[in-house]
Amino acid sequence: MELDLIAAFQRLLANRSERVVRWSGDDCAVVRARPFQAVSVDAMVDGVHFRLDLPQVTPADAGHRALAGALSDLAAMGADAGEAYVTLGLPPGFTADATLELGRGMEELAARHGVTIAGGDITRAPAVTIAITVVGWADREDQLIGRDGAVPGDAVVVTGTLGASAAGLALLLGDAELDDTDTGAAAVAQALLRRHLRPEPRLDLGRRLARPQAGPPAHALIDLSDGVATDAGHVARASGVVLEIDLDTLPLARGVAEVAARLGMLPGVLAATGGEDYELLACLPPEAVGRLGGAVTEIGRVVAVEAGGEPGLRLAGAGSARPLRGHEHPVG
Amino acid sequence: MELDLIAAFQRLLANRSERVVRWSGDDCAVVRARPFQAVSVDAMVDGVHFRLDLPQVTPADAGHRALAGALSDLAAMGADAGEAYVTLGLPPGFTADATLELGRGMEELAARHGVTIAGGDITRAPAVTIAITVVGWADREDQLIGRDGAVPGDAVVVTGTLGASAAGLALLLGDAELDDTDTGAAAVAQALLRRHLRPEPRLDLGRRLARPQAGPPAHALIDLSDGVATDAGHVARASGVVLEIDLDTLPLARGVAEVAARLGMLPGVLAATGGEDYELLACLPPEAVGRLGGAVTEIGRVVAVEAGGEPGLRLAGAGSARPLRGHEHPVG
Repeated sequence: MELDLIAAFQRLLANRSERVVRWSGDDCAVVRARPFQAVSVDAMVDGVHFRLDLPQVTPADAGHRALAGALSDLAAMGADAGEAYVTLGLPPGFTADATLELGRGMEELAARHGVTIAGGDITRAPAVTIAITVVGWADREDQLIGRDGAVPGDAVVVTGTLGASAAGLALLLGDAELDDTDTGAAAVAQALLRRHLRPEPRLDLGRRLARPQAGPPAHALIDLSDGVATDAGHVARASGVVLEIDLDTLPLARGVAEVAARLGMLPGVLAATGGEDYELLACLPPEAVGRLGGAVTEIGRVVAVEAGGEPGLRLAGAGSARPLRGHEHPVG
Repeated sequence: MELDLIAAFQRLLANRSERVVRWSGDDCAVVRARPFQAVSVDAMVDGVHFRLDLPQVTPADAGHRALAGALSDLAAMGADAGEAYVTLGLPPGFTADATLELGRGMEELAARHGVTIAGGDITRAPAVTIAITVVGWADREDQLIGRDGAVPGDAVVVTGTLGASAAGLALLLGDAELDDTDTGAAAVAQALLRRHLRPEPRLDLGRRLARPQAGPPAHALIDLSDGVATDAGHVARASGVVLEIDLDTLPLARGVAEVAARLGMLPGVLAATGGEDYELLACLPPEAVGRLGGAVTEIGRVVAVEAGGEPGLRLAGAGSARPLRGHEHPVG
């Protein structure tokens, strides 16, 4: 790969951490560590996870989205986000301008969360490929919350609203559209599209759930990359409990009910199966819910596995009688 | 990606570190840190960095080679190798068996160096893509040796022998062959091929150069991924000095001179321009060289930049009169 492009890419980036003692230009980045490190890797490929062939999708969106997906895993541990390391695979036709735009999309998100992009590699590849490793930090092991700590009696909560990314994707692909005689519809559609293209990792809320200023921390934490219907099941099995979730209580983003209707789906089903909202799901003592104010919505509770039963998800509400099936779409 | 394949891949791997307190199965791996962390990322793509279409190249070779390239960057800082995080992009035709063989090639190398593959991601991609992040550790910042510390008076040394990977690649691609009337030639060819397909990162020697039991540590350290002609220039510019290197003193692997002759090149030029030997180049006080025994070969010295001059490389020996050009080959 041309050294000029790598140098131009590096000039986009800022070292915003005193912990990063060697940044770019050596064999390795060198970082002053804190006692515990959380690490996650995430890769996105053009045509699989995003579609640069669509006119509404920019290289900056792709860069943002790949980094957001990785940072969301740090949010899901309650870690303080630290550094990101980026590998780009670029096909011959992908211009230097597009590469730098992709980098700017990533760097803007990194800046907003105090993350330093501390190293990377650029290589040729047949499709635009963005592989990201993120490193987060904590001072104590028990400040990092896994999926395995949910206990019977816990409340199940989610941050923000659900279904927005899936609804935005359906609008992007033309599988659904909002009634354009409604003057507010364009703004709603724009917001849904943005939730799909520029998801925001919930790093602040992750820390607040893992390390509340008062009261007990969350017992289990996960990010909603695949949707409640899948991710709540991961928590249930890792914790050896049953999560009872009422689909009618899922907080819907504005416009999700309308898009679901166009797709012939129940809103709660779209919200539970549409992935990539990158909100958080937590299990925590019921008395802790009130202290979080309006930041979370209670969607269910944790119960013990019955004799002869298995850990997993138990759904209630409209659409729960049959196995959930998401809207099929060509990417995601 | 099928969860079965991910689960089978994970079963190949062992957690060989007490520092890895959460391994697979959560949003992040969690690692108990040491005070300083060295991180490098490296990606290899089929058709660009390796050729799985050639019958002599196995998926295990590709896995080994990708991890070796990344670990070599830790060797080049003198770090203790810790964890590796692996992203695989796999095309539809790449079988589960091939994927697991790739994983075994990686895990065998990891085991030999006490490295834990602590996390990863598998996704679809149009060509086999292996993106690796490696993390190494040290207790003090000054135990990690950069490229920027070479001072006039230093000796320039390299570990092992050079040119083997480039010679092995020439044999692999049929650009050259060794005289098969010589009974030893097959073994030599095999050894060169192995140096290309299964390079060994010099982690032990890196630590020994960075933290000798007696005497001063190396002032500057780099791994030879692109070849002496390129990598010594990086050290010179980062350190603001001139590295004088005599091409006739480069230690040649057995068979390199013969392959160079078949390619119509001088042996020292092939050794200096053939990349991917993954040996180390160090600049260190001359009195420290003797203490390293036969582990290194002295190939030059560090001098000050003359008035009006610039930092960089100054070559002597056969082939140095003209700008060096490596053997052109379709991959590497």
